[in-house]
Amino acid sequence: MKKTNFVFKYRVSYADTDKMGYAYYANYFVWFERARTELLRNMGMSYKNIEEKGFALPVSETSCAYYKPIYYDDELEILTAVDEFSRASLSFKYEIKRDGIVLTKAYSKHPFIDKSGKPVRIIEELETVLS
Amino acid sequence: MKKTNFVFKYRVSYADTDKMGYAYYANYFVWFERARTELLRNMGMSYKNIEEKGFALPVSETSCAYYKPIYYDDELEILTAVDEFSRASLSFKYEIKRDGIVLTKAYSKHPFIDKSGKPVRIIEELETVLS
Amino acid sequence: MKKTNFVFKYRVSYADTDKMGYAYYANYFVWFERARTELLRNMGMSYKNIEEKGFALPVSETSCAYYKPIYYDDELEILTAVDEFSRASLSFKYEIKRDGIVLTKAYSKHPFIDKSGKPVRIIEELETVLS
Amino acid sequence: MKKTNFVFKYRVSYADTDKMGYAYYANYFVWFERARTELLRNMGMSYKNIEEKGFALPVSETSCAYYKPIYYDDELEILTAVDEFSRASLSFKYEIKRDGIVLTKAYSKHPFIDKSGKPVRIIEELETVLS
Repeated sequence: MKKTNFVFKYRVSYADTDKMGYAYYANYFVWFERARTELLRNMGMSYKNIEEKGFALPVSETSCAYYKPIYYDDELEILTAVDEFSRASLSFKYEIKRDGIVLTKAYSKHPFIDKSGKPVRIIEELETVLS
Repeated sequence: MKKTNFVFKYRVSYADTDKMGYAYYANYFVWFERARTELLRNMGMSYKNIEEKGFALPVSETSCAYYKPIYYDDELEILTAVDEFSRASLSFKYEIKRDGIVLTKAYSKHPFIDKSGKPVRIIEELETVLS
Repeated sequence: MKKTNFVFKYRVSYADTDKMGYAYYANYFVWFERARTELLRNMGMSYKNIEEKGFALPVSETSCAYYKPIYYDDELEILTAVDEFSRASLSFKYEIKRDGIVLTKAYSKHPFIDKSGKPVRIIEELETVLS
Repeated sequence: MKKTNFVFKYRVSYADTDKMGYAYYANYFVWFERARTELLRNMGMSYKNIEEKGFALPVSETSCAYYKPIYYDDELEILTAVDEFSRASLSFKYEIKRDGIVLTKAYSKHPFIDKSGKPVRIIEELETVLS
């Protein structure tokens, strides 16, 4: 079985910030996309490849708890792990740390669909990788 | 008592879309920021004014359920309402509709803080508006 | 001949700002996309429709001069006009004003391509609208 | 004299893309911000540090020529160099390459200002680094 977690390192850009001096709350979800993409790649399955095979994993649910602010130029560790996988969907959980302190916890769920947008059973390749 | 809900109209831009042809999931939270800002303005309290008085309402929690995809140039109605308010925080709920169909439901929670980032009791002006 | 200019009104969001308290420089181009889309719609040609006919107007050139900062909650007027059109491309110029003062001037150029990405001569419908 | 150029490596995210399947044109400027920040850091001067000293380098001019499309998951090399520096401003030029092919050329100019927004002469530390 492949390792189903990954630490994605991210440096906060000026674009990420808002006038409060914090990283803007919507941008966290952009980082989570990067983090789960690199987790999948690390597991041997590039998301680009999943799309080329005619499948997609859109987002059906997200949640995020923002415990402490994140600032410009912060070096973050985004701990990303497969939370659950079934024949119909895959979910991830995320934890953002700075200097070992947990700043944020989050979750996202992704149903498997085909190019026409119809739900499909788990992709064979993903199943191999995730089992 | 002021009306604590508001319908914010939003047209999906090209910038909002991704290569799947859907509106990208993180961008919804940018729309929700616009929607709650206009709700507050409609209730007689501009968020800019709240900040000028030395207060802020950062985000401590978000969640979003994406039922159906949203596409380029869609004309959306974002139904926004105060969900709860206490002396310490304010929360909102959101529903995105297109042609009367609910596409998305979401939630955000916002603690009251002062300029130094410390929690404060509800701002007098907000209390008047929200009571 | 249709009117080839349009004033697009835009309210600056929190998402638009950065820690300097200014609107972040890349976001201006998102506003310009909205502005030229509404100019085209006002001229009787929706960009969505252009794409449905199998054409696209990607961006080949941009420039922007930022004279004065733009702030949160500013109400902007984005004066947008067709600058030049030829059989191969369409260009726009933009001026952002707040309270009558010009804050920004910008330009963008858009070649006509088909779905395969190949350059095409001006779309018949656009020609009618622009001539 | 320090080396005034730097190759910033960037992987295109899903968030960067639009429904055309290209990287959206405004997002390039977010990448350029990252690229010049890492160039400055590599020269021994972090932009965060510049702000802590009470200075800022906002953007006064940008331009970009988009020669070829950029796609999801592309691994880009963003060649970034100091173009000119004077007592009043600093400018950068950028070239985006994929597999050695130049896809984009761009430019940005940044005046030196203090916290109140007034123009200042070049910051001593920057001068040392740039001379």
